Order: sequence, then C-alpha cells, then structure tokens
Amino acid sequence: MLKEFDYIFNPGSIAVIGASHTDGFTRSLTKTEKTKDNLFLVNPNHKELFGKRCYPSILDIEEEVDYVVIAVSALLIPQVLKDCIEKGVKAAHVFSSGFSETGMAERIKLEDELKEIVKGKIRLIGPNCLGIHCPKSGLSFNPEASTEEGPVGVVSQSGTFADLFLDIGKIRNIKFSKVISYGNGIDLDCPDFLEYLAEDDETKVIALYIEGIRNGERLKSALKKAASKKPVVALKGGVTEHGSRAAASHTGSLAGSPQIWRAFFEQAGVVQVESFDELVNTILAISCSPLPSGKGVSIITHSGGFSVLETDICVKAGLEVPQFGEKTLRKLKKLVPVAGTSIRNPLDAWPLYYRSSALRDTIKAIALDENIHSLVLHIDELKYWRQILAEELEDFVRKVLGFMIDACEYARDEIKKPVMICVSLETYSEDEEDRKCHLMVKKEFENRGFPVYPTLEGAIKTLLNLYKYRTRSLRT
Amino acid sequence: MLKEFDYIFNPGSIAVIGASHTDGFTRSLTKTEKTKDNLFLVNPNHKELFGKRCYPSILDIEEEVDYVVIAVSALLIPQVLKDCIEKGVKAAHVFSSGFSETGMAERIKLEDELKEIVKGKIRLIGPNCLGIHCPKSGLSFNPEASTEEGPVGVVSQSGTFADLFLDIGKIRNIKFSKVISYGNGIDLDCPDFLEYLAEDDETKVIALYIEGIRNGERLKSALKKAASKKPVVALKGGVTEHGSRAAASHTGSLAGSPQIWRAFFEQAGVVQVESFDELVNTILAISCSPLPSGKGVSIITHSGGFSVLETDICVKAGLEVPQFGEKTLRKLKKLVPVAGTSIRNPLDAWPLYYRSSALRDTIKAIALDENIHSLVLHIDELKYWRQILAEELEDFVRKVLGFMIDACEYARDEIKKPVMICVSLETYSEDEEDRKCHLMVKKEFENRGFPVYPTLEGAIKTLLNLYKYRTRSLRT
Repeated sequence: MLKEFDYIFNPGSIAVIGASHTDGFTRSLTKTEKTKDNLFLVNPNHKELFGKRCYPSILDIEEEVDYVVIAVSALLIPQVLKDCIEKGVKAAHVFSSGFSETGMAERIKLEDELKEIVKGKIRLIGPNCLGIHCPKSGLSFNPEASTEEGPVGVVSQSGTFADLFLDIGKIRNIKFSKVISYGNGIDLDCPDFLEYLAEDDETKVIALYIEGIRNGERLKSALKKAASKKPVVALKGGVTEHGSRAAASHTGSLAGSPQIWRAFFEQAGVVQVESFDELVNTILAISCSPLPSGKGVSIITHSGGFSVLETDICVKAGLEVPQFGEKTLRKLKKLVPVAGTSIRNPLDAWPLYYRSSALRDTIKAIALDENIHSLVLHIDELKYWRQILAEELEDFVRKVLGFMIDACEYARDEIKKPVMICVSLETYSEDEEDRKCHLMVKKEFENRGFPVYPTLEGAIKTLLNLYKYRTRSLRT
Repeated sequence: MLKEFDYIFNPGSIAVIGASHTDGFTRSLTKTEKTKDNLFLVNPNHKELFGKRCYPSILDIEEEVDYVVIAVSALLIPQVLKDCIEKGVKAAHVFSSGFSETGMAERIKLEDELKEIVKGKIRLIGPNCLGIHCPKSGLSFNPEASTEEGPVGVVSQSGTFADLFLDIGKIRNIKFSKVISYGNGIDLDCPDFLEYLAEDDETKVIALYIEGIRNGERLKSALKKAASKKPVVALKGGVTEHGSRAAASHTGSLAGSPQIWRAFFEQAGVVQVESFDELVNTILAISCSPLPSGKGVSIITHSGGFSVLETDICVKAGLEVPQFGEKTLRKLKKLVPVAGTSIRNPLDAWPLYYRSSALRDTIKAIALDENIHSLVLHIDELKYWRQILAEELEDFVRKVLGFMIDACEYARDEIKKPVMICVSLETYSEDEEDRKCHLMVKKEFENRGFPVYPTLEGAIKTLLNLYKYRTRSLRT
C-alpha cells in the first residue's frame, strides 16, 4: 500500500488530462520547479499551454507517467481511464463531478462503471474532488497556496473545504504535509488516507472533514489507528436531519445520527469539533502547543472593562478562572501597581505594560502558579496605545512584545503550559493603521510558534479541546 | 424627571473639570460646533487648552453651567461637587474611579459621602464611568465616534463596553441616539436611564449591559416598561460564579445566579444574549429588519461545498432549513441551470450569478415560499470571481449586487421577511484587493439598510433572537 501512495504523493512524473489555462492543477504544476519538468499536459484542443507542449492523448506521451489528474467531462472518463491503464499509469485523480452525487440513476451507473474499470489496475482518487496538495513534491490544486511544508495533514470529503483550509492556512500560519480531497472515494477512500497519514512521518496532526461513510467499521479502525499515533481532530458535516439531507445531495453518501457519530469519534479517540472555525483553531494549537494539565486558565489583559465577560466566556465553555495562589499573590503585589488595577484573575494590570520587565516577571509568576494550567494573553487595546504614543507606537509595541514573548516562551518551553494569544480585531475594520499594528503583533507571536486567535471565544474553545484531548490520552 | 434629563442630554452649557489635552471629553467637546461655544474648561494647571480659556475653578465661570464632567482625583471629588452645587449646576458626571469598586473600606465611605453631598441638590452620573454620548447635542467621551444620530440607545454599567460599542458602531453601521455609561450609579442608576430611553422618541431599540444591581424590583419594573414600548436586548456580565466575582471587583455590585437572571429578563420581556458580539449583531438587525414569522430559513449561496455545514449551523441554533414548496420548485426549475447545482435549500446555484436577472427572480420566488420565513444571502466566493474576472470584477459585482439588492428589498419591504446578509471575510486576511471587494459589497447592502454579518453563525443566531423577540411580543 505505501508504495502505491508514493506514486500519489511523490510521483516521478505527472500528466494533467484536460489541461487548460485556468484550472488550478495546470496553474499549480507549471508554477513550481518541483514538478514542471516532469509534467505532461494533455488536451487535443491546445498545442501548447504555459509554454509547454500539449499532447492530444495520454497515449501520445513517450515517457512513463506515474500519476494523472483528469479534468474532462464525466462522460469521457471511462475511456480516459482505459487509456491511462494502457499507458501503465499507477494512480489517477478524477476531478470531474457528475456521478453518484447527482442522485441520477444513469450517473450512479456511470460511477459503477468506473469502479469496474479501475479494479486492480490503477488506483483512483475521486471522482468529484480536488485531489492532492503536497508541498514537498509540488503537487497542488490551489496555485495560491503556500508551498511551505508543515505538520498538518488534512483528509476532506469536500473539495471546497480542502481548498479553504489552504487559503486559511496562509492567513492563520498553518502549514501542511498533505491535504487530500477524496470526494466520492470509489477506490481510495477516507480510511485509506487516514491509515497513510497515521504512518506518514511528515504528518504530526490530522484534520478530518467527513459527511458520510460507506464502511463504518473500516473507518473506525483507521481512525483508532491514526488517533493512537497522533492527534486527530474531526468535523462531521450533516449532523442534523436537514444537514444530512444536504450532505446526501452533495457527495452522494449517507450520514448517521449526531449521537452515533459522537460515540463513534469518542470510541476512536478523536477530538470532535462543531464548526470549521473550531477545526482550524484546534488544529493550529494542537500542532504547536503543550497540553493543559487542568482546567485553570489565567487571562492577562490590558483593559479591565472586559474581565467579567472574559471570565464568563471561560466558565461557559467549561473551563475555570481560579484565583492565584498565595505565593503568586505575594510576588504580584511587588510587581503590580495598585491604582486602577487589580491582582485578581483575569489580570487587568494595564500600568504593567509601561514597565515591560515587570510585565515579563508577572507572566512568569502566573505561569508558575499551581492553580493555573494555561495562559491567555488578550491583546485588544492597541488603539489606546496609539492615541497616547502616536509615532512611538511601533517601537513601544515591539519593546513590550519582546518582554511578553520572553515570558510566554518560558511558560511554554520551561513550565510546559499552553499559552494562547488573542489579538482581537474587528473583521470589517478599515482603520488600516490599527490593522497593521495588530497584524504585526500577530506575526511576532506566530514567528515564535504561538497559536494566535482573532477572538477570545476561539482561543478558549481551543483550550478546552486541548484539555479534552489530554484527558483522552490519559484514558486510552 | 424628564426636565432633569434634558439638562443631561441637551445641556445649554457644559464644563469639564480637570480638562486636559488627552481626555476624551475635552477632545470631543472642543471638536464639534454643537458644544464648543457653550463649553467651559476648568483646570488650575492650564491657562488655555485647545485655544480655549481654562478656569481655575467652576466658581470662576460667570455664565450659567447646566452640566459638568468631573475628571479629577477621587479624593478631590467631594469639594468639587460642593462647588458645583454652589454654582447651581444641574447635573454632574463623575468620570473618576477609586470608590466602592475598589472594595476598600475608606473608598466605600468616600462614595457614601458623595451620596450625602448630592442628595436633592444635583443629579449625579457615576462615579467610575464614561458618562454620556449624545450625537444630537454633541456630548461625547469618544472623540473618534461617529456624530451621526440613529435609533440605538445603550445603557451600560461598564465604560469600556460603552466605548467599544461606539467604535464597533462605526464599523458595523450602527447609529446611536444615546449611549450611557453609568458605572457605580450612586444617584442616577440603570432603571432611571431605562425609563428615560423608554420615553425617548429618538430611541427605537435599547441595548443594556449590566453586571449587578442594587434594587431588583425597580430594575424589573423599568425593564418591563421599556420592553413594552420598544425592543430591549440585554447582556448580563458575571453570569457564572467566577464571572460574578470579577464583576464585584469591577463595579462594586452584587450579581445573582444565571437562572435568576434568565427568569428575570424573560418576565420583563427582554431578549437576553450571551456575548458582546451577539448583542451587537442582534441590535443591528432588530433596529432595521422585519421579524420572522417562523423558523424556516433559506440560505442562498454561491459555493455548494458549504451547504452541509450551513444547514448544520441553522439547525444547531434551533432554526430550520425546510425544502421549498411545490410552487417554488416549479418556478426555480425554469430559472436554475441544472449541471453542478441543486435547487434544494440551501440554494448553491452558482451559475445564477452569471445571469443576474435569474438570480433576482430566484430570490423573489424563495421570498414568496410559505415554508421560508427568512432569507440569508451568504457571499463568500469573491475570490473565485476575481480569478475569473480580473479587472472586470468590480463592474461584475456591482451589476450582480444591483439585482440582488432589488430582490432583497422586495423580500423585506413587500413580503416583510427578514433578509440577513453574510459577507464572509477572514479577520486576519491581508489580501487587500479581496478585502476591498468584500467591504464594497458590505457597504452597498448597508446603504440599503440591510444588516450585514461577517460570519454565518452570527447572522443565524441573530435570526433566532429576532424570532424569539417576535414570539415574546405575541405572548405579552
């Protein structure tokens, strides 16, 4: 099996059948040095694309071809697959839709025909999917995606979803080993890819998006295997009655009840999330952060006015905002100026920010507190700093940031407690200077490997998922 | 009572005691024509500020003063208040903190002293609050806030919260009649302001943020009165044990259990929300949208890949995504091209966007469907349009938008069904061209009075709140 996957993720040569100026495959594969010299384009309507020769048929190529991407009309796929088999291609990805997912009898029959054609002769990904993104080998369906390699493997039934993951990865500093969109999965299916990623050394965590399944036992065993080796975070689409109906129409698969799926994931040792945002947020932290050993959170903020709501967010999510221990309080009393601030948790000690070394020592003291199992730095008051500091803002922020990061690295690397960074920003804000400053802070923390969140809710929900994952690890 | 409030919201003359170059009051009040000629600045340390004379004491001003803002150290407040009373000032806002909220015995005593001083002699707002923003008269604490008048009245125990509401109002197209931050409320308290806004013709909806109360019966009667006249949406901070503790430290007030507060708001006919985001989102729609007469939602989108998750979001929130009626299906079959799309709900009919009048007629047909009580337009695929259309993007989007808005106005104004617009955008996205295009779409809808949401979750949760508010209205 692993050899077959090598042809898929690291093919010696690739052909795009139905290549064009606009499809994401041709655009991606002609762009990178990694693939462009081992790439063949096939389309009888073109002589050349992106300066490369275009062949009328796969059979006209003289060199060996390991892997093909097929992007032609559904009705042509049977013949194209037969040609690929004749040519000795090892694996084919069928991008085209128009099969069982339409619900139409003749299209279901067409899909059955594909199954028969490929059986034992060639491995198939799809149909109705985007296929493979693998930065190491240069394979991709998204020409705008980052080509940097990273720890996250994604298995997704939906192509939209896989594509969006790449777009958001660029924005949220998530880097991928492999992203797999498998669509109708008539040959290689979700469990095959999960088993592959479980063994893949380049993949440290796995994100799964699934709508329905064909073989529950096979999936559960693959999930169990994967989850025993690395964190697996799963989002099940179509958990509700109406959602299931939409899922059936979208990928032609059946879905179980929410209760069944919840038990299914729990038994497999998988962290189940409820939304795409939560999946992105959780994958981000679980790939770079230690796990919390308890529910106690300390929030360190610059503006006191939101302490109450911040605490509510934590406690509603199922975490705790305990008071600091006596030892910590003694240390903090020396560090935190009294007027207008409090040394309670959440810590809203704004004057500290004007005495950076005291801020660093405060964060370190909190990290050492036995009641506190994770730290959240909530940075949302840059506007006020700007009003006070004007042109000196950037220098000031960089200085404060240096001390903050120093303390956060101590908490994460020495004390092994997770540190989540929340850089609050209104999505629609057009205050470009403010955005620029927030994004600078975000990137500084990202560069040091911290997970950064645009909302406190997102950061807190993620912490809960890390805690759930840890208690799961202890149980199994 | 109303006459007293007139001195507060429309004072003939104003003084800032403790005026400076940096405080928000002086900066706001010297900025607008509405106030700057009836404004007096008081500070013995300055001769002049912003080109205006500075008086050593309120008693040195010869003209009458209706309303003062006091921003001096807590310990000086008793004497300053006595001076104001001697001067014949009608109402005073004490910005300064350092009273009962500190939990310190001598500061609680100081607050009691203020109560004694003002009783029957002058009306007091605060201490420990930002006071009043009233665009009509020009009063404000936030010099960056919009000076446009609008339908939303805000009563907030927390100053941070009131200030953020103004900032976010600018970004999210929410316009205010009055924003009131009342802090420790030792004279004029939350119920007084609620009763005032209930009667205020310029206020059409009321947003309330409260952490704790001093007189539950008084508050409930004020809420009932307000809610019988206009929608009241409330966020209770400190609903959890830990949150309550933070609330006590922040404004010196006590908080009840979450159950008590839930029953309290329900009995008063108030829509209770769970987060600041939800409050903003709900206020936005409830001030400009008809109410849904049932739970049926139709989502109209451009990308099919998320139909499943979109449906899940609705159903998890407690709404429904019913199938279209027979009559609608017949109409849609004529309008929607079949390949690659479906005429199910959610409607993911991307080819429609290239035939704008068909898109308009489709939205209108859905608006007429009896199963559908509200519409959500989910716009999240501008990136794809840009790839296809390049420089023609803006013209294309404006053309499609014209037809969309036409149909949405029909749904809202003729059929009286709420239409929510979701313009999805990643908060941290640095694709400036993409942001620009999304923001253009957002503003076009806002200009026609539609509520626009950055996330589908936000739009859906808001619809549920509108539905809850409507069923409440029917009950009472």
